[in-house]
Amino acid sequence: MPGMGRTKLLHGAWIVTMDPDLKVYNDGAIFILDDRIKALGPSSDIFPSFSKEADETLDLSGHWIIPGLINTHVHTSQQLARGIADDVDLLTWLHERIWPFESNMTTEDSFLSTLLCGIELIHSGVTCFAEAGGQHVDAMAHAVEKLGIRACLARSTMDTGEGLPASWASESTDSCVKIQEELFKKYHGSACGRVHVWFGLRQILNATDDLLLRTKELANKYKTGIHMHVAEIPYENKYVSEQRHVEHGTVTYLSKIGLLGSNLLAAHSVWVNPNEVDLMAKSSVKVSHCPASNLRMLGFAPIQEMLSAGVCVSIGTDGAPSNNRMSIVDEMYLASLIHKGKVVFTKGTTDPSALPAECILKMATVGGAKAVLQEHQIGSLEVGKKADLVVINPNTWTMMPIHDPIASLVYSMRTENVDSVMCDGQWIMREKRILTVNEVHCHIYFKFEV
Amino acid sequence: MPGMGRTKLLHGAWIVTMDPDLKVYNDGAIFILDDRIKALGPSSDIFPSFSKEADETLDLSGHWIIPGLINTHVHTSQQLARGIADDVDLLTWLHERIWPFESNMTTEDSFLSTLLCGIELIHSGVTCFAEAGGQHVDAMAHAVEKLGIRACLARSTMDTGEGLPASWASESTDSCVKIQEELFKKYHGSACGRVHVWFGLRQILNATDDLLLRTKELANKYKTGIHMHVAEIPYENKYVSEQRHVEHGTVTYLSKIGLLGSNLLAAHSVWVNPNEVDLMAKSSVKVSHCPASNLRMLGFAPIQEMLSAGVCVSIGTDGAPSNNRMSIVDEMYLASLIHKGKVVFTKGTTDPSALPAECILKMATVGGAKAVLQEHQIGSLEVGKKADLVVINPNTWTMMPIHDPIASLVYSMRTENVDSVMCDGQWIMREKRILTVNEVHCHIYFKFEV
Repeated sequence: MPGMGRTKLLHGAWIVTMDPDLKVYNDGAIFILDDRIKALGPSSDIFPSFSKEADETLDLSGHWIIPGLINTHVHTSQQLARGIADDVDLLTWLHERIWPFESNMTTEDSFLSTLLCGIELIHSGVTCFAEAGGQHVDAMAHAVEKLGIRACLARSTMDTGEGLPASWASESTDSCVKIQEELFKKYHGSACGRVHVWFGLRQILNATDDLLLRTKELANKYKTGIHMHVAEIPYENKYVSEQRHVEHGTVTYLSKIGLLGSNLLAAHSVWVNPNEVDLMAKSSVKVSHCPASNLRMLGFAPIQEMLSAGVCVSIGTDGAPSNNRMSIVDEMYLASLIHKGKVVFTKGTTDPSALPAECILKMATVGGAKAVLQEHQIGSLEVGKKADLVVINPNTWTMMPIHDPIASLVYSMRTENVDSVMCDGQWIMREKRILTVNEVHCHIYFKFEV
Repeated sequence: MPGMGRTKLLHGAWIVTMDPDLKVYNDGAIFILDDRIKALGPSSDIFPSFSKEADETLDLSGHWIIPGLINTHVHTSQQLARGIADDVDLLTWLHERIWPFESNMTTEDSFLSTLLCGIELIHSGVTCFAEAGGQHVDAMAHAVEKLGIRACLARSTMDTGEGLPASWASESTDSCVKIQEELFKKYHGSACGRVHVWFGLRQILNATDDLLLRTKELANKYKTGIHMHVAEIPYENKYVSEQRHVEHGTVTYLSKIGLLGSNLLAAHSVWVNPNEVDLMAKSSVKVSHCPASNLRMLGFAPIQEMLSAGVCVSIGTDGAPSNNRMSIVDEMYLASLIHKGKVVFTKGTTDPSALPAECILKMATVGGAKAVLQEHQIGSLEVGKKADLVVINPNTWTMMPIHDPIASLVYSMRTENVDSVMCDGQWIMREKRILTVNEVHCHIYFKFEV
């Protein structure tokens, strides 16, 4: 079908594949058929072979192509709450600002919030995100469909806990399970397969054993993931060890009841001891590291120790009230800086060689793909994989001069260097303009309807 | 002289003055005559009074005006070395990358490097910077004149030390002093007073007592500042206490010989003990805090302790090889995050209320103005002060929604929200385009000539 844009040929770019060999092409080309990468290699090979059958041919000389970035922990519902809880302590943050806000959101609020969040994520090169759990999965799914992005959505799920808003405090375990199962059946695989539905567990202080175990059972049954906040603050571990009678904290307890597994995405995981890092590694738990939010609210996660132990670590922005800048580009920069710096407290000097650029880029691409259980589809640019990619324009004063392009991507690149974004073989942003929704008036152009 | 643009009226903006009362105008106006703020207040007062005599009237509805930001520690000569030393340890960084690079720079290299650095600084809202010390003050002064920015320039000065490149190792104390005195006489007050010349001391390991004392004497004589790297790494303190026989380190020693004073700008000051913080407060030393560079290379400076003790703290980006992002906007964001996070190592939890937004904004404005010894001229928007200001466009997905504008400025604003910059009453950037030099081809348009 010529003219229908089924095939695209991008050539002349410097391509970072992030494939198992970490192959890079100085003058590379990608041929895309529908949603997939059909061919990839030096422009001199690919261009002559595919230029005739390409509906769209794009010369990207001077530009770089990298895999779509994956944000593995984000609260899209909280985007409208950016700035409502700056400079306040954690309890005020949660009880007086975030919970009252979130528990009063309508589906329309949630739809708009996810749209606005999605716009910011796409601008920073994100093609897939994992939602930590909001109130209205239907609204989120609708927004994701409009945005053209990929997402693993989860419902914020709690069946116990103190201090909850009235509307949240009454939900039974049965209801928690039933609603999520219905959401899974209704939305999993929607938006041409771009929407996945996961099971949400807000955190251990808001989950009975019954909920924990039934969630695990369901996730296994439906072959999907569980998104849960894990080991965020010392109090959480203390409470768990006292109330649930284990030696250390949340991870030890989750291991004891069999919840750790390759389909658990453990957000933050800041307060885990070496034994718990081993438990996470052995059970193939995935970690979402959120540098800015951790630095502000939680602490310094033992990321180097996790990586050494073989834990799959990815990167998340968290929500707007925890990290006002919702850019995975800024998070990559921070992730490296924080772990270069933190060793000063144990070793007496920083380690500028810690978590080098390539390691960070892995976390945001192949690490993210594993975390969202889609490593066979996304996370790297390889023949047969989904065409999720980002075009970078490095030719600005923000990045010049460039000596080591991989380091430049992580340390110098800013959100504004992200030029174009493709997800599932479709351009969703070109030359810094989002094509799928109207960035300026999205609330006017896309009335919420489910 | 109508048409000559001597007078400007900016109105309709939300204005953050940073004056002693921290006054803010919701719908404010500023009237500028030549280089100075002539009137400032509600648009309803200022507009009728001055609209007739304004050569240029600008409606800035929906925009914010803040004082020009001040970057108190930057190596403009190192801009061309961005990325030459990522992910390497400190000794490799210094001896194998930075020193060979810097010691081989020509005046033309330095001119271009300062131009490129200045472009990046202006885009982040900087109207004044303090150069930590490069090789070619003449070239830097020339670039600053072209850029239209304000700067305190210093020469990198060393008369002793191990491992120095040959071209640097041979300089005598006399020569160090003589060259700087000549530079002062030639360039101090140039570029219509925008260029100040300071005395540079690279760091204590590269300075004899003779150089330290003569520098102090000269700075006092010429009523100018001294820019020096202070207490960067534990080794520095150890070396000083062993070789120069004092109890702790650099600050203790500088106090002992009388070098501490209100004209000393101490960059980094990471490894200072409580007694040294007191010494700095009592002698009115100014500190330049460089969050990113510290996190990567040096450690966590006791900024809260300094502020509590009354030390004047300002913010610096450091040079491009220490902090690939040369944006004071990013540094403000980081400064707050780091100090919210670091207390976890002493208190067991982070303190999200530490270094609140207003405190950070003070550091980058009035704190910076004190640090560069120009608090009577710049740092806040007040009648009689220089018209150094920044126009922010907050109406983008990067900042929306806004609940607390001051917090938004520090936590959500990104470099790309900086719309326009005025220095000394002249627009040097309008709508994200620099007016003074050609950003794309500055090396073609401005051939170096002194």
